[in-house]
Amino acid sequence: MTYESLKKGSFEALLKEKIDNKTKPFGALGRLEQLAFQIASVQQTLNPVLKSPKLFVFAADHGIVKEGVSAYPSEVTYQMVLNFLKGGAAINVFCKQNNIDLQIVDAGVDADFSVIHGVINRKIAKGTQNFLYSQAMTAEQCHTAISYGGDLIDSESETSIFCFGEMGIGNTSSASMLMSLFCDLPIEYCVGRGTGLSDEQFAHKLSVLIRSLGNHNVDKSDTIQVLSTFGGFEIAMMAGAMMAAAENGKLIMVDGFIATAAFLVAFKIVPEILSKAIFSHVSDEQGHSKMLDFLGAEPLLKLDLRLGEGTGCALAYPLVQAAVNFLNDMASFESAGVSK
Amino acid sequence: MTYESLKKGSFEALLKEKIDNKTKPFGALGRLEQLAFQIASVQQTLNPVLKSPKLFVFAADHGIVKEGVSAYPSEVTYQMVLNFLKGGAAINVFCKQNNIDLQIVDAGVDADFSVIHGVINRKIAKGTQNFLYSQAMTAEQCHTAISYGGDLIDSESETSIFCFGEMGIGNTSSASMLMSLFCDLPIEYCVGRGTGLSDEQFAHKLSVLIRSLGNHNVDKSDTIQVLSTFGGFEIAMMAGAMMAAAENGKLIMVDGFIATAAFLVAFKIVPEILSKAIFSHVSDEQGHSKMLDFLGAEPLLKLDLRLGEGTGCALAYPLVQAAVNFLNDMASFESAGVSK
Repeated sequence: MTYESLKKGSFEALLKEKIDNKTKPFGALGRLEQLAFQIASVQQTLNPVLKSPKLFVFAADHGIVKEGVSAYPSEVTYQMVLNFLKGGAAINVFCKQNNIDLQIVDAGVDADFSVIHGVINRKIAKGTQNFLYSQAMTAEQCHTAISYGGDLIDSESETSIFCFGEMGIGNTSSASMLMSLFCDLPIEYCVGRGTGLSDEQFAHKLSVLIRSLGNHNVDKSDTIQVLSTFGGFEIAMMAGAMMAAAENGKLIMVDGFIATAAFLVAFKIVPEILSKAIFSHVSDEQGHSKMLDFLGAEPLLKLDLRLGEGTGCALAYPLVQAAVNFLNDMASFESAGVSK
Repeated sequence: MTYESLKKGSFEALLKEKIDNKTKPFGALGRLEQLAFQIASVQQTLNPVLKSPKLFVFAADHGIVKEGVSAYPSEVTYQMVLNFLKGGAAINVFCKQNNIDLQIVDAGVDADFSVIHGVINRKIAKGTQNFLYSQAMTAEQCHTAISYGGDLIDSESETSIFCFGEMGIGNTSSASMLMSLFCDLPIEYCVGRGTGLSDEQFAHKLSVLIRSLGNHNVDKSDTIQVLSTFGGFEIAMMAGAMMAAAENGKLIMVDGFIATAAFLVAFKIVPEILSKAIFSHVSDEQGHSKMLDFLGAEPLLKLDLRLGEGTGCALAYPLVQAAVNFLNDMASFESAGVSK
């Protein structure tokens, strides 16, 4: 054993002892105990803290929407961003409830925001290209999006936990393509009804994605190539932000289907990121649970959500707080005089 | 259709319309939408509020512990109540986090608390009798416990939501017996490892409970008889409190295995109580999920908790708040100018 691994072993033993000595039967806080262990391990302290939690919503438009893959028109991306900025969306309500700072990033919305709107402008282009016929973005755009995401995180050194959500009409199509290639699963296992397609619309979406897959000859092992071909600007930027957060030793909270697809990108590039990630929920979008299985990830909530925006993160955040709070604030058997 | 049912129909239509017009895809908030619908229906308003949330922990001891059915000695009930009063238990930490007022009720702990401790004294006796050989309590004690529980609720008219938890070494044995009789399931489907029994201890617990069942000739349809024979004071008092809360039009949050057994008692007496109840979690105690299935109840959390104390309620409470908040505070498609 190296000195480092001995030190790690002894830290883990102390942490386990601290958890097991709390006034509760052994293991009785279930998933919260694993969560407390993970958080303390990421922060390398027996007394972890959650400072200035921040949730980024990355928004962008998708060329593939021209093929009729979504129940909503592209304009809704812009309209929903305005709704975020005015405080009327679900994510605003849940972030406010749980004291999470919400930041809206324009990664590539097909509209112009005025500076007074308060959006963070990191627009790569006004939406991606239609990946049925061409690459969604150039490799250069892809790298730029990843690096913009990283910069956003690097400027927030106070924050100990970052939550990630998105808005982008058409982005379940992108996420399904990434999932199929990265998880090596047939596309039909990866496609869902998004914001609520009918049977007929769903069949059409699937056929568009099957044809898109046939129109490109991508090397699955080339993560940037896959991302450039089928990704979205919000997905690439989110992946960059996740990698930076992990590199800076921060905790990452992952939302639903699209955010997990962005996580897959980050995971393909930096597999160690998994130890920093908390999966907030498993969504109602078919495919999400298989993606989580692929990662061996156990989500905190299962509430049949299929909204995105980071809502799963904001809703699960109190459980993350609870894990930290029990570790810091519960009495031990000894301090409370309770028989073990 | 009567005037009342027409009025009800129109209220429900308005409520559904309000939920569906929020800026989100139809049904995209999943379980939270059902929860919002339930809460607004209980309060008969489109703008529900959660005022002064209160969590009662009912504590009591159990004669059956003499038979070695628990991993912990009876003294731990008293010790844990002191821990609650000093603020060191999990339930203290989670109630504090979520601004829930915590009240500790001595329903029948086998010890004396001084007045300075701050416990609410509703002691029926110092623990129940050992139900292997005799009735756990008299019918009179049972009725007294139920009525004490009701009185506690009646004096809290400000509160719109009551959460219920318990502490009582040995009370999974009581809960298993009630479950077996009320759900009409073999006792072996209803017995679990409680606070953490070994295989051998578990087999012993099961054999004690099988013998106990054989030693009494109870009429399953007589709820009070079943409760008096196998119940606990905390279970009876909690059932009384739940019935009073429902009668007063309040919301009820139910914790784990034992609290759900208390709910079964209340449900047998007043089946309409189901519409008022929110099931906070499904615990790791085998039997709890079957109990919830029996009730057709869908719990909010599944975190492998097996602690009791009301911890599941306190942890799930932010989701209840979130349901109310989205209903009150999210923009509608119209107000936000988002295409539907």
